[in-house]
Amino acid sequence: MTPGGAGVQHHDTASRPGSRPDTGRPLGETAGPAEALAEALSARGLPAHDLPSRELLAPYLHARAAEFLRSLRLHRESGQDPQGAAEAAEAARALRAAARRISGTLHTFRPLTETGWADTLRAELAWLSGVLAREHAYAGRLNRLLEALNRLSGAGGGTGGGTGGVPVPPARGGGSSEPGSSLTVGAARAGALLERQLTLARTRAHSAALQALGSSRFHAVADAVALLASDVPLGPAAAAPAAEVLTPLATGAEQRLREAVAALPLGRASHPYNAEALLHGLAPAPSSEAQDAPWHHVRLLLRLHRYAQEVVIGPGDTRPAARALDRHRDAAEAATAAASAARTPRIAPATAYALGVLHADQRHEVEAARFAFQQVWQPAPAAP
Amino acid sequence: MTPGGAGVQHHDTASRPGSRPDTGRPLGETAGPAEALAEALSARGLPAHDLPSRELLAPYLHARAAEFLRSLRLHRESGQDPQGAAEAAEAARALRAAARRISGTLHTFRPLTETGWADTLRAELAWLSGVLAREHAYAGRLNRLLEALNRLSGAGGGTGGGTGGVPVPPARGGGSSEPGSSLTVGAARAGALLERQLTLARTRAHSAALQALGSSRFHAVADAVALLASDVPLGPAAAAPAAEVLTPLATGAEQRLREAVAALPLGRASHPYNAEALLHGLAPAPSSEAQDAPWHHVRLLLRLHRYAQEVVIGPGDTRPAARALDRHRDAAEAATAAASAARTPRIAPATAYALGVLHADQRHEVEAARFAFQQVWQPAPAAP
Repeated sequence: MTPGGAGVQHHDTASRPGSRPDTGRPLGETAGPAEALAEALSARGLPAHDLPSRELLAPYLHARAAEFLRSLRLHRESGQDPQGAAEAAEAARALRAAARRISGTLHTFRPLTETGWADTLRAELAWLSGVLAREHAYAGRLNRLLEALNRLSGAGGGTGGGTGGVPVPPARGGGSSEPGSSLTVGAARAGALLERQLTLARTRAHSAALQALGSSRFHAVADAVALLASDVPLGPAAAAPAAEVLTPLATGAEQRLREAVAALPLGRASHPYNAEALLHGLAPAPSSEAQDAPWHHVRLLLRLHRYAQEVVIGPGDTRPAARALDRHRDAAEAATAAASAARTPRIAPATAYALGVLHADQRHEVEAARFAFQQVWQPAPAAP
Repeated sequence: MTPGGAGVQHHDTASRPGSRPDTGRPLGETAGPAEALAEALSARGLPAHDLPSRELLAPYLHARAAEFLRSLRLHRESGQDPQGAAEAAEAARALRAAARRISGTLHTFRPLTETGWADTLRAELAWLSGVLAREHAYAGRLNRLLEALNRLSGAGGGTGGGTGGVPVPPARGGGSSEPGSSLTVGAARAGALLERQLTLARTRAHSAALQALGSSRFHAVADAVALLASDVPLGPAAAAPAAEVLTPLATGAEQRLREAVAALPLGRASHPYNAEALLHGLAPAPSSEAQDAPWHHVRLLLRLHRYAQEVVIGPGDTRPAARALDRHRDAAEAATAAASAARTPRIAPATAYALGVLHADQRHEVEAARFAFQQVWQPAPAAP
C-alpha cells in the first residue's frame, strides 16, 4: 500500500496530533519548507539535496488514498449496523478529511502530476466533499444555535438535546402581560423553528449523501482513488529533486497564505468589541458576506498550507489558527440561518425578536473568532 | 459668596478639566487623600496639620451652591428665549451637576454637618436631580438607539436626526420575497417605534421637570441652597483639624469605592467576547439587572470619591473610568428600552427581529464598557 521510498513512513501519522511545537504561531517564526525539509531528512540520515519529488509526494497520496478506501469500507459496514450512527459519522468525517487532503495536494503540487487526470479527480473530489459535508454542517449549525439559545434563555441543559430545557409553548399570538415571559416564549419557538428547518435540511442532505455514495459517479471516484493507492499518475517533473521542485511549490502555498492574511483587517480585529461583524447587519445587502469572504478564503489557504507541510515534513499543527477560522465560518453560517429563519412567514413577533438576538449573538461570535485568530497569528508585543 | 479661608479659591475650578494627571488610573498608584492634602496645602504655603475641616468643606459647598443658583437663573432666562433650547439644556446639566455635588458632599462629610438639615436637603436634591435627569436620559437613549440602528442598517447619516436615513415604509405584513429587504423594513419600523415611545416619554419628563421647577417644593430647595451659598450649617466636628476628621471621611469614600471595584468580576471582564452581558438575555427573569447592579453601584461610588477628592485637593480626573461606567449604564438602559419596545402588541415580526438585534448590540456595548473599565482600572501587566 505504501511502496514509496523508505524513511517516509512518517506520513502515515498525518492524522495524529502534530509533534512540532508550531501551534499556529506566526509563520515567520518557523522555518520555511526548504529548511524544514532539510532538517527533517537529515534527522533521518537521508540526503536532502537529490531526493526526487515523487519520493515525498507519492507515499503521501498513497497513504491518503488508503485512508479514503478504509473510511469508505467502515462507512458501508456501519450503515448496515443499526447502532452504527456514530461510527458512520466518524467514517464520513475521515472520508472527507482524506478527500480534502488528496484534492489539496493535487492542487498545490499540480505541476508534478499528470495534470488532466489530476484536474478531473480534484473536481470529482470537490463534488463528493461538498455532498458529504452538508449533512454534517446542518447538524453542527443546529447544535450551535440551540446551545446559544439555551445560553440566552438560561434554560441550562446540555448540547444538542433538541430544544434542550426550553419548553415549547402552544402557538398563540404575542402580547403576554407578564414582562419577559413573551421573550422566553420567543426563545422556545425560535428553537423549535430552527430545529424544524435545519432538521429538514439535514435529512435532505443525508438522503443526497446516500444517493451520491450509491451513484456510478461515486464509483468512478472510488476507482480513481483506488488507483492512487497503488500508483500515482505523476508527470516528468516529479523526477526532479524535491528541493528544486516540490519544496518551492509548498513555499508557494505558504506565500499565498501569508499574502491573504496580510490583507485581512487584523488591526481592527485586534481591538475587542469593534462592532464590525454586525455592521450593516440590518441593511438590504448586509455587509457580512463581503466582510466574511477574505476570512473564509484564508481558512482554505491555511488548510492547503497545512497539507503541503504534511507532504514536505510530516504533520504540523496550525490548529489554534484553524480552529479560530472554523469557528468564524460556523458562526457566520449560524447567523445567516437565524436571519433566514426570521424571514419565515407568519412567525410571532417574540420568535422574530429571539432570532434577532440570536443572529447578533452569532455575529459577535464571528467578531470574537477574528479576534482569536489575530491573537494566535500576531501575539501582542510586550507592553511598553 | 466664598467667605472661606484664603487659599482655597482653587475649589472654584471644580468644573474645569482636572489638572492632575490621574486620568482614572488605579487608585493604588496615586497618593491617598491625606498625603495629597498635605502636598496641596504645602504647595500653597499653608499649614496642613491644624487647618479646621470647615475651611475646606464650607468654601466647596458655597461654590457649588453658587453654581446651582447661577444655573437656575440661566435656565429661567433661556426658557423665555425661543432660541434658548441649547442654553436651557446646558443650564439644566449644570444645575444637575451642582445638585449632585452638594448632595454627594453632604453624604460623604455628613458627620461634619448639622445632620438633620443635611439629610433633608439631600433627599430633596435627590428628588430634584431625578426629575431633571429623566428628560435628558430619554433624549440620550433615543439618540443612542437610532445611531445604533443607523450603524446596523447601513443608512449612514448623522446622529440624532430622527430616524436618520432609514425611510419608514407603509405598515404592512412581513414576508417580502426579496431577501433582506424585510429586515431593513424592520430596522426602519423599529426606529419609528422607538422614536414614538421615547419621544413621548421625553415630553412627559419635560412637563414633569417644568412642573417641578415651578412647585413650592422646589422653591424650598432653592431657598435651602441659597442659605448654603452664604452659610453652611455645620456641626461642632467641623472645627476639628481636616487631617483628623475631613480627610479620613474622604478616605472612607475611596475605601468603599476600592472594595466595590474589588468585588466586580474584573477577571471575566478582561477577557473580550466573554458573552456574559447577553447571558440569559431571553430568560423570563433576565440576569442583566442582577449583573449590571454592581457596576452601576461602582459608578455612584466613583462619583462620590471624585467629589470628595474635589473637596480635599481640588478637581481631579477620573474621567476614563467614569466614562466607561456612564457608557455601561447608558447601553444597559438602551438595551432594556429595545426589549421593552419589542413587547409592544401587534408589531410586525421584522420590527421585533430588528429590536432583538438592537438589544443584543446594546448588551454587547455593556460588555465592551466593562472591558474598557477593566482596562482603565487594571492596565495589562507587561507581556511575559
